[in-house]
Amino acid sequence: MKINLYQKRLDRCAELMRNAGLDALLLTKPANMFYLTGDGRLCAYALITRDAKVALGVPQTDVEDVSARAHFNQIAGFEDEVGMIHSIAHHFQHFGIQEGSVGLEYTFLTQSMMAMMTHPHAKPEEVAVKDCTHILSELRMVKEPGEIERIRAAAQVAGAGMAAAIEAVKPGLTESQVAAEAEYALRQAGAEEFWRTYISSGPRTNIAHGLPTLRRLQEGDLVMIDVHPIVDGYSADICRTVCVGQPTAEQQAAYDLYLKAQQATIAMVKAGVGMVELEETLHGILKEAGHGDHVFGPPIHGVGIEFEEAPLPPGHAFFHGEKAPPPLPANVVLAVGNCGLYAGPWGVRVEDTVVVGEGGPEVLTNLARELTK
Amino acid sequence: MKINLYQKRLDRCAELMRNAGLDALLLTKPANMFYLTGDGRLCAYALITRDAKVALGVPQTDVEDVSARAHFNQIAGFEDEVGMIHSIAHHFQHFGIQEGSVGLEYTFLTQSMMAMMTHPHAKPEEVAVKDCTHILSELRMVKEPGEIERIRAAAQVAGAGMAAAIEAVKPGLTESQVAAEAEYALRQAGAEEFWRTYISSGPRTNIAHGLPTLRRLQEGDLVMIDVHPIVDGYSADICRTVCVGQPTAEQQAAYDLYLKAQQATIAMVKAGVGMVELEETLHGILKEAGHGDHVFGPPIHGVGIEFEEAPLPPGHAFFHGEKAPPPLPANVVLAVGNCGLYAGPWGVRVEDTVVVGEGGPEVLTNLARELTK
Repeated sequence: MKINLYQKRLDRCAELMRNAGLDALLLTKPANMFYLTGDGRLCAYALITRDAKVALGVPQTDVEDVSARAHFNQIAGFEDEVGMIHSIAHHFQHFGIQEGSVGLEYTFLTQSMMAMMTHPHAKPEEVAVKDCTHILSELRMVKEPGEIERIRAAAQVAGAGMAAAIEAVKPGLTESQVAAEAEYALRQAGAEEFWRTYISSGPRTNIAHGLPTLRRLQEGDLVMIDVHPIVDGYSADICRTVCVGQPTAEQQAAYDLYLKAQQATIAMVKAGVGMVELEETLHGILKEAGHGDHVFGPPIHGVGIEFEEAPLPPGHAFFHGEKAPPPLPANVVLAVGNCGLYAGPWGVRVEDTVVVGEGGPEVLTNLARELTK
Repeated sequence: MKINLYQKRLDRCAELMRNAGLDALLLTKPANMFYLTGDGRLCAYALITRDAKVALGVPQTDVEDVSARAHFNQIAGFEDEVGMIHSIAHHFQHFGIQEGSVGLEYTFLTQSMMAMMTHPHAKPEEVAVKDCTHILSELRMVKEPGEIERIRAAAQVAGAGMAAAIEAVKPGLTESQVAAEAEYALRQAGAEEFWRTYISSGPRTNIAHGLPTLRRLQEGDLVMIDVHPIVDGYSADICRTVCVGQPTAEQQAAYDLYLKAQQATIAMVKAGVGMVELEETLHGILKEAGHGDHVFGPPIHGVGIEFEEAPLPPGHAFFHGEKAPPPLPANVVLAVGNCGLYAGPWGVRVEDTVVVGEGGPEVLTNLARELTK
């Protein structure tokens, strides 16, 4: 049953490869390998052929563990970088791929990893190299029912982590200690892992990527909390902003405005809507209120195996190596509200994970959205 | 005073740039920017000239925060990717760099980030691109006294996290819950952040990168715990293996062997020693006992702003875009014991953070090394 699932995904992958004129994919990004084979890990690769065969290369220590989890046709263990390179050459030879082109993940591979994967002792000389990011993004963008169930479970866990963090917020606590409460609760609620937690407070809520520091919360601070648990391989994305004590009228007004923009955007989410429409709705409401310059980053992005993945709005997509998404089909999962409103002395952000339904949105992260605890 | 520190580092950097024939560095790796300017963050860059001037580009939301922290000559805020690209062009023009060559971080930049940083609207056409990884590694390899103090503080925090995790180990707990205890204690003890925690148990201790899962600990399991807190921007690296209940004679023998190899290697650490000698010592003892094939990854690596950085043993260094290190000068900081011993049904690993002293090692992570809790 599980094997059929992966074989089905591989068959779709092979079709996209043939359309793109690719003879093979050489993947190293754990999220992509996890999607196609059931196992994704660091320091490993998957060679996928256009007839949907899979050869894996993993550390020699991991062969048994991967064999028990992954769907594949052949596997090689390697003991070091030289062994890895030789095993890639071996797999190319085994599949008879000595010319044509191979797709690599240009949005994941560093220059030095690229040099290793395309080393003359790894890749046959006559095989050209192309970017395959768009193939994997297209494959992963529309979620299967089983994937949505897992994202739903992750959203439940995200709510538990967020509730614990909000509950803990009080003067004197460090941002790092707020993160501690959130992350502890995520793991207790069933997360096997999480992506980086963002916690910022006071003037730091005005910055784009507020990783936690030892700054202590003070009365009147806003606190921005953004968590992303991983449950059964799938993520959710939730952000809430709360006040330590009573917010000022300006804080409340900015918060109410942002929440209005975010909720209006969520209300538009349904099959057939464009990412540009969603982006323009969220930005438009902020702009009309004079806050057009007070945002940063894509206001909407996909959620799945990664907490931030395709689709992205076209402008961001281009620079991040992704293609502009089509009108959204049903069963894409989005995070809505990522851009924030950075008003100067502080910022506010509210973000939720939402399924694109045939007739409208299904919000998976339902924790209350109140600035006052 | 802080400014002098960064200016001194920048002056050394400029000297290495001139020796390498580089006219500028265009950095995006937070660790490198943090070292040279006092601030490193995602979605930002630093352009460094060969007369040690710094131009920063950061999200427009972050200008004030960065201005309060970083050492720089000029700063630009950008609102999106297009703005970032244009601000890079502006800085090149301001410094009058229209030819020559610029160094980029080939071990950090993905293909798509590379395309953005070298976009025709960012980098002047006549400016060639080279890898500058080796310059930053050379700069950061020998630690200043203030850096060692911070790594020492991180090592103390690492000990607190490890002690909490070991204390918590008992049948029925998930690996993720063991991670929760470690990470909570790290943050309570003063870490602002941490790198990924590795927790593996039972048969999973035999894999190379054991990220936590929902597997529940069972009586007789080995549990491998590897934590890396960040304190005041600096990291430490510690790994311990403990048994749930009483270890078997085989487990104890493998553990004793690995600990002997690790301790013998630490004993050799002093100014002038080579990474190859250290690697051969650790591997040699394991090999002599018939476990030569049961290791994975570099047995020794550097520790500093990153928990895993240069120096690396020559073979690994080459494939990871680093240069083979010279005989180690005093005040390099190493993690010793990273390769593990993966015996088949389970594995063991003990790893410590050690300063290369003039006359011998100074071990910073001193928590007991006992297989039995």
